[in-house]
Amino acid sequence: MRTLILGGARSGKTRLAQQLAADSALAVTYIATAGAGDAEMAARIARHREDRPAHWQTVECPHQLSATLRALAAPERCLLVDCLTLWLSNLLQQSEQTLARECAALGESVSQLPGRIILVANETGLGVVPLGALTRRFVDEAGRLHQQLARRCDEVLLCVAGLPLTLKSAAGPQ
Amino acid sequence: MRTLILGGARSGKTRLAQQLAADSALAVTYIATAGAGDAEMAARIARHREDRPAHWQTVECPHQLSATLRALAAPERCLLVDCLTLWLSNLLQQSEQTLARECAALGESVSQLPGRIILVANETGLGVVPLGALTRRFVDEAGRLHQQLARRCDEVLLCVAGLPLTLKSAAGPQ
Amino acid sequence: MRTLILGGARSGKTRLAQQLAADSALAVTYIATAGAGDAEMAARIARHREDRPAHWQTVECPHQLSATLRALAAPERCLLVDCLTLWLSNLLQQSEQTLARECAALGESVSQLPGRIILVANETGLGVVPLGALTRRFVDEAGRLHQQLARRCDEVLLCVAGLPLTLKSAAGPQ
Repeated sequence: MRTLILGGARSGKTRLAQQLAADSALAVTYIATAGAGDAEMAARIARHREDRPAHWQTVECPHQLSATLRALAAPERCLLVDCLTLWLSNLLQQSEQTLARECAALGESVSQLPGRIILVANETGLGVVPLGALTRRFVDEAGRLHQQLARRCDEVLLCVAGLPLTLKSAAGPQ
Repeated sequence: MRTLILGGARSGKTRLAQQLAADSALAVTYIATAGAGDAEMAARIARHREDRPAHWQTVECPHQLSATLRALAAPERCLLVDCLTLWLSNLLQQSEQTLARECAALGESVSQLPGRIILVANETGLGVVPLGALTRRFVDEAGRLHQQLARRCDEVLLCVAGLPLTLKSAAGPQ
Repeated sequence: MRTLILGGARSGKTRLAQQLAADSALAVTYIATAGAGDAEMAARIARHREDRPAHWQTVECPHQLSATLRALAAPERCLLVDCLTLWLSNLLQQSEQTLARECAALGESVSQLPGRIILVANETGLGVVPLGALTRRFVDEAGRLHQQLARRCDEVLLCVAGLPLTLKSAAGPQ
């Protein structure tokens, strides 16, 4: 069972993902893609860590997400990736080939791996896209990645004000 | 009955809120949080005022929203707050303690007060968050406020192109 | 039958519109509003063209959309406009009177014309609105246009990660 949770900034998507992981009653591995590059980010990471059950395993993975998922996935395990957006931001600093290869590998892994997989990503495409070629490229790549993963997931949710809107359910699209 | 209406810029959320207020068949008090700080804002305020029924009471409340709601709420009255986003912008110019206290007080008031309450807010979290610490803080605080109020409201709607999407209905979340 | 498809950047709205056009089993005319003003835009246009069936007719229409629709509409034809947002951006460079007249004429055409009409537009109102009077005016005009067209269409969809959320269906609003 694979779930993609999209949501805006501070929309409650991490809390929703953690609730789904807890509901799975499986052993949970939390895969954090954030690097604590500055004080603001370090504070966010610390706040998120306090919100998680202490018995969950945490793995830091700013790069090579597909390989990490392949190493950790198991039928009785829940992998929670929080979030794809930071991972994609890290990838944008590398070559186009690396980015394309990593995104394709992630899609294949999500299709093939056993167990419960929950992916969290920021929806950033519904506002005015700010000036700057890098920002436009980020929005384009994020949109493509979300479409690709949405096709491969069984369930896709959009989180707004902490409330999930179902975009795709196990029974098929709305 | 408490309703939170989220929506983007020019999404028709004010019109939807006014329709719900009219449908309540109660005496309506319109609580305007805007201060006419510049000509553009003054023109928006004037345009909004023309759209409202003349017999509605209007109260201007750029600050201390919770106290205003407590003073005005009554079982047979509908309070329409338009909009939380401007009120929050005003609060961001004050201390963190004041902001936290006012947001908590608003949440409690919304839970406790009698009558019909309709809250309008801008959803601003679904685009790229522009650079600047103040803007990021605004988006964070708005997201937290919306989550907190969504938990306390009976009904939460997302307005897009004038059409309401139900995020939470009296019968529970979607 | 008139459909308005809203969606963010790279949300899959063009693909969804093309699917609906193909499903109509009518002769399809693709009305492209983009002008290939720079290399980035030219590359996007070329990529979009490759995605379309070769037997579809393509008409370029950066201006005077209403007149173009009136000239082309027929009971057994499907007109696909991709996208309203570029057309509106073009209009913003003209006078307010021209913009208001063109938007009103488009609304009337959408209400009156025979055949299948599919309109694609970017939803840009759900993020922080960047500074700048022109950007704010764009967001305002886009929001008004979407509301006006949503009232006149039989079906309104919001596309997120390639998946359609129904905002309005032939059976009425949600």
